[in-house]
Amino acid sequence: MHDVETGSVRLRPAAAGDLVPIVALLADDPLGREREEGGPELDTRYREAFAAIERDPHQLLAVAERGNRIVGVLQLTFIPGLTRRGMWRGQIEGVRVATTERGSGIGRSMLEWAIEECRNRGCGLVQLTSDERRADAHRFYDALGFRATHRGYKLPL
Amino acid sequence: MHDVETGSVRLRPAAAGDLVPIVALLADDPLGREREEGGPELDTRYREAFAAIERDPHQLLAVAERGNRIVGVLQLTFIPGLTRRGMWRGQIEGVRVATTERGSGIGRSMLEWAIEECRNRGCGLVQLTSDERRADAHRFYDALGFRATHRGYKLPL
Repeated sequence: MHDVETGSVRLRPAAAGDLVPIVALLADDPLGREREEGGPELDTRYREAFAAIERDPHQLLAVAERGNRIVGVLQLTFIPGLTRRGMWRGQIEGVRVATTERGSGIGRSMLEWAIEECRNRGCGLVQLTSDERRADAHRFYDALGFRATHRGYKLPL
Repeated sequence: MHDVETGSVRLRPAAAGDLVPIVALLADDPLGREREEGGPELDTRYREAFAAIERDPHQLLAVAERGNRIVGVLQLTFIPGLTRRGMWRGQIEGVRVATTERGSGIGRSMLEWAIEECRNRGCGLVQLTSDERRADAHRFYDALGFRATHRGYKLPL
């Protein structure tokens, strides 16, 4: 993976030192507000999850940085599978852009970078699910060429 | 993971020797017919994909067996993530039941087994996507307690 500069925004793999601003980004979201717990004293589960992502060669957590500030985050998972003649899939989860940076094209740069990363890893498909309540996100993914051909089912345990 | 007997059907991890009947199952499907290539001489990409799944401790390919016959298959992927306070997700892909065995409860046994496996691995959520055209599958997942709260976007590369 290469660092990529897009305008003044740089995309790079996340480092452990980025964890506090990343969780702040996840919490700064209408749906994330109820589900995350930010602040300087992070829940250890975030640190454990970060370590698990770092250890797994099929996970890639990336941040978008403007100057010294983390303004976006997303996670890529590369999944081997038998269907479609043994095709690999790239899966995108947890896409967030800082509220102050929305509409600046950062989200598009992040997704284009992620798609390219999936291509470089030999994936035949990129997939993601988006909450039905995120109407803005749907317009965004439609404009990037994604098609909502599937239903995304979830079962909390 | 334990082998589980449900009625006369046994769930167990797939072995390399199961690959020909597994791919036959994937091909014996209205959507799979166009996308897969079964037969005794398997495309090497299936073998490579199987090897990649076997090497990855976060992948679990499972088959349902009745007597000596493979009658179902599914793949589980365990995904670490930062969102929802560092929650792991279990993801189900490529669920297929032999056409001759539909309605016999094998699908339900497979899914219940998969959900339990996700619970045992500490996942807080199980997720899957299902093609909008698979109306029967939607009733099936609804009945299992899944909720179609998300849109499933795909982008072929």
